[in-house]
Amino acid sequence: MPDTVAPNLVAAVSEARHWQRLMEMGAIGGFTDADGNEGVNRACLTELDRQARRLLISWAGQAGLAVTIDALGNLFLRHEGTVPGLAPVVTGSHMDSQPQGGRFDGIWGVLAAFEAVQALRDAGVSTRRPIEVVAWTNEEGGRYAPGCMGSMAYAGYAPPTTWDAVTDKDGIRFGDALREHLAAEADLTRRPLGVVEGSAPFAYVEAHIEQGPRLEAEGLDIGVVTGIQGSRWFLVEISGKSDHAGTTPLGLRQDAVQDMLRAITALNALMRDPTDVLRFTVAHIEVEPNTSNSVASKARFTIDFRHPDNAVLQARGNAIAGVIQSALATCTATVTERFHAIPTDFAPLVPDAVEAAARAQGLRAIRMPSGAFHDAQFIHPLCPTGMIFVPCRAGISHHPAEYAEPAALAAGTRVLAQVLADLANREEAI
Amino acid sequence: MPDTVAPNLVAAVSEARHWQRLMEMGAIGGFTDADGNEGVNRACLTELDRQARRLLISWAGQAGLAVTIDALGNLFLRHEGTVPGLAPVVTGSHMDSQPQGGRFDGIWGVLAAFEAVQALRDAGVSTRRPIEVVAWTNEEGGRYAPGCMGSMAYAGYAPPTTWDAVTDKDGIRFGDALREHLAAEADLTRRPLGVVEGSAPFAYVEAHIEQGPRLEAEGLDIGVVTGIQGSRWFLVEISGKSDHAGTTPLGLRQDAVQDMLRAITALNALMRDPTDVLRFTVAHIEVEPNTSNSVASKARFTIDFRHPDNAVLQARGNAIAGVIQSALATCTATVTERFHAIPTDFAPLVPDAVEAAARAQGLRAIRMPSGAFHDAQFIHPLCPTGMIFVPCRAGISHHPAEYAEPAALAAGTRVLAQVLADLANREEAI
Repeated sequence: MPDTVAPNLVAAVSEARHWQRLMEMGAIGGFTDADGNEGVNRACLTELDRQARRLLISWAGQAGLAVTIDALGNLFLRHEGTVPGLAPVVTGSHMDSQPQGGRFDGIWGVLAAFEAVQALRDAGVSTRRPIEVVAWTNEEGGRYAPGCMGSMAYAGYAPPTTWDAVTDKDGIRFGDALREHLAAEADLTRRPLGVVEGSAPFAYVEAHIEQGPRLEAEGLDIGVVTGIQGSRWFLVEISGKSDHAGTTPLGLRQDAVQDMLRAITALNALMRDPTDVLRFTVAHIEVEPNTSNSVASKARFTIDFRHPDNAVLQARGNAIAGVIQSALATCTATVTERFHAIPTDFAPLVPDAVEAAARAQGLRAIRMPSGAFHDAQFIHPLCPTGMIFVPCRAGISHHPAEYAEPAALAAGTRVLAQVLADLANREEAI
Repeated sequence: MPDTVAPNLVAAVSEARHWQRLMEMGAIGGFTDADGNEGVNRACLTELDRQARRLLISWAGQAGLAVTIDALGNLFLRHEGTVPGLAPVVTGSHMDSQPQGGRFDGIWGVLAAFEAVQALRDAGVSTRRPIEVVAWTNEEGGRYAPGCMGSMAYAGYAPPTTWDAVTDKDGIRFGDALREHLAAEADLTRRPLGVVEGSAPFAYVEAHIEQGPRLEAEGLDIGVVTGIQGSRWFLVEISGKSDHAGTTPLGLRQDAVQDMLRAITALNALMRDPTDVLRFTVAHIEVEPNTSNSVASKARFTIDFRHPDNAVLQARGNAIAGVIQSALATCTATVTERFHAIPTDFAPLVPDAVEAAARAQGLRAIRMPSGAFHDAQFIHPLCPTGMIFVPCRAGISHHPAEYAEPAALAAGTRVLAQVLADLANREEAI
């Protein structure tokens, strides 16, 4: 394992070019909120998503990378290796954002991968293995739930048609949005979805802002990600009966809002955790008919539940449906699990390479788990996988105030460049 | 006060014609729900609302009534009296519906008034006073809150531009929707808004389905409405901070959904009423950004609070804002009152006339208050006012299952015809 810096490679990473590209991408779907923060709303498979992808593809063409796309819309930019037939090192992240998202989540990992590969080529550093920069489709799950559809389909976690009937808030089916997207990118070379005939990647590395406060608070440059906590998502639909708000006595109602209140209160008790490690979030609510003077006939809400310990994730997650049913006073409820990712511990190859590169470059690094899920969680079963975190301001993410310093991002990109040079010259995993 | 039936007038009310018109109106915005109920979604000032009004106007033309419209879009169909200069008897209701509404709420009162006036004319019963059939704009408040804008503006309760900036869920301003509506009805004769130079109505009578279960349960034909309980509507907006659902510890969040939960729980305690007379409803909720894995930065909800006792209405209504502020754990909240109608007790003139007509026709009547608010509540300060209730199935309203029997509606219309003949021949209020 190399423990020295490749000076010409590190020098070839351009902080200014990298930042400029990030700001160009941030303008696609960009907006300024009431507090003056510059956010991004770029949902997957929208026209804005397509614009961002076409911009990346134009840069890839200038850099001489070969562009391919698969049946889920996952986009690959390939740098060739010197030895034919070796499995590639894959690196990247996603380009879609939350509705009120920031300019760094996801897109930085794609542009860091692209900058790192460009630095390799500019520095004349050849690699035995090919390197593929990937942009996974729909990591966020904001327009179409669940997230990570692109990486899940690539990894064979679910068939590619699994989510065709999922609709967005305008009733547009995922399958239709994907078909329209693929038609608009008919000029790109199509590649088979996922791993064909044992062609698993040699390794997968994803660079990402931390989305938490730790690196900044402790004055660190690099998070060497050791694993990702588990996540389970549920959709709860409570069915009652609509009635006139002025005439129907409360004792005769089946009020879906009131039973939603009872259900969430009971879930708060189930999810109580004095250590504050458990993450429990209700952040999406829909009510029908949603008019102030008609008692609610339906209330739908989502549950986002995460924990690093699989025993806790299973025990409390499996209790959710029963707790809700017991909490209802007058209505009925259905509880549907929409996403289930067990906690991930990365194999040593990539974390060790990240830590070695950070040390060689004189950066302050720490081993840490990820609280957010990432596409890396689904690539993990295919090959040695890892992530590189950089600090972001106050740990804020999924918000227009999300911010990372140009220098911090460039440092992460330099580490990524060295990790790619290292891994793409390995003969086999150690 | 007459206590005998006018047989030719009662006979001139056509149950079949009346029902047929009601069904024609119900088809405008009509839909069938999953249970096979035929509901109506006809929001105020929409194209469907205009279609319904044009149909009524076409019938008015055939019947020889003069059509006028005022600056709020309130529509008047006038039957002339025999003595020039006397104040009119006004009767009617509204034509808009809830989003998931029924075929009877509001529209029946307009069509009953029209049928009663047509019966008077067909029977050759002349009246000293004119009779005006009115359709008030936006009683429901479903598209634009609050409800009763048309009658409030007519009664001088608020200036006609008060609600111009109120937007519907698509961001269309009430003022713009009203302007577009008036432009589409530019062919109609315009009348001044409200009461000009002391020209208050002699009396106002509104026919309506009960929207409660009592008449049906007790086997009664007619509710002689003695007053209307008070209503107060509030909009609550809770402001927190959006964060990543996977990375942000619960102890560091400002979660607007969780503080909404605390606020509604505290309001449930404030509004507790063992007698089940008080009506407290939270039926409209909006969350931002409303994506499952971003902590909610905003949660808005409505409060619909009603009580027949003004002391209770004021004491508990005035406590709402303080109770909410005390309940919040991490967020801030604004509480805005959007509607405030104090309890109404009708003067004896109209209720006595209704009871006398019902008795004369051999119908079973009872004096009762109204749980729902109605346009009558705002006309009440201008002139003697009253309402006629008829039974509806299981008390269901604001729902596609809302239903009233053709015979029950015809009975109510016959009572209304006799009340109009009675009041429009009075010299002055007794």
